[in-house]
Amino acid sequence: MTANLYQLSAPKKVVLDTSLFVNPDVRENLGKTPTEALETFLALAAKIKILEFYMPPSILEELLNFVDKEKITGEMLLMINQKPPKKHELKCPGIVLYELIEDMRERVNKGLRAAEKAVRSAAGKEPDEIIQDLRKKYREALREGIIDSKEDVDLLLLALELDAILISADQGLIKWAEKMGIQWVLPERFRDYLMAAEKSSPDN
Amino acid sequence: MTANLYQLSAPKKVVLDTSLFVNPDVRENLGKTPTEALETFLALAAKIKILEFYMPPSILEELLNFVDKEKITGEMLLMINQKPPKKHELKCPGIVLYELIEDMRERVNKGLRAAEKAVRSAAGKEPDEIIQDLRKKYREALREGIIDSKEDVDLLLLALELDAILISADQGLIKWAEKMGIQWVLPERFRDYLMAAEKSSPDN
Repeated sequence: MTANLYQLSAPKKVVLDTSLFVNPDVRENLGKTPTEALETFLALAAKIKILEFYMPPSILEELLNFVDKEKITGEMLLMINQKPPKKHELKCPGIVLYELIEDMRERVNKGLRAAEKAVRSAAGKEPDEIIQDLRKKYREALREGIIDSKEDVDLLLLALELDAILISADQGLIKWAEKMGIQWVLPERFRDYLMAAEKSSPDN
Repeated sequence: MTANLYQLSAPKKVVLDTSLFVNPDVRENLGKTPTEALETFLALAAKIKILEFYMPPSILEELLNFVDKEKITGEMLLMINQKPPKKHELKCPGIVLYELIEDMRERVNKGLRAAEKAVRSAAGKEPDEIIQDLRKKYREALREGIIDSKEDVDLLLLALELDAILISADQGLIKWAEKMGIQWVLPERFRDYLMAAEKSSPDN
């Protein structure tokens, strides 16, 4: 038997986002439902020795809203390390603060323009319909492509702390991984990535 | 002549915000107009040896929108150090990112509620009036008490970098100075602070 190079080095750390199992565009490679996608992942992951999987507890909690809780086995809890980032010790580059605030500033203005337009179009119309459209536009302006929750920050800071690879289907997170120098993988190739990692793993 | 203790130590660094010369509530101690307030400050500052004044260039530029440019003398440029923070080297604590994003998230929701309310109240009314009120409420929700511009970040990061005292009349900035452990001075006592510093300075 030939020595496997990978055996010689420590496993790479990978931080996983809920979106991989929930976002239908990305999930479809793994399964028809979030539960099925998670099971496919776990079956593959069990045979992968060259990667070490992590999830912040806030993200695992989020995932539990989408999958059958009965399927969360002890094996899974052992295989996916639940680790929050050391948020009081970690530092982020000052430039990130500038970019975040400039980005929000533009979005806040865009949100106001959408709201003003809605008010102007409301005269004599059914407000419910206008509001539904406003909510969509407002969400697009202020939520999409941005990090907007503590779960997002957990993922980025954990990846920074562990010098890990971030895998997420959220374009906002990928954009910020880029800014912060965090390694990431095309989310739609997540399954291929896992299968290659399985092949490269030393025999059990 | 007794030795002055202050002569023995390096001058304290102070980072100044435009708001000190512009915000009417705070400015009134110094002058009737921003130009007058700036002149009063400069006259006092010329006699203060125990403080060293700084302003990020972005803040000086902001100030130039409010004061008579003829009054910006070479002495003033010498007296107020214009220094941007080393934004690519400085780091901010990870926890700041969480607080900023949680704060924005709540504000974004509040902004949407204000917009929805405006749409509901618009039926059969003059939209201009509704929009004016909406702008006010939206600004309150999304702008007040928050750091929302690169100038704000410049002030905070420069104060961090220099381990300086931040003096600003902006409550949002003071709130963030608190979170980041930056020393600050009650803005309405700015003049008293300067006068005490003048008295404590060694004779010219």
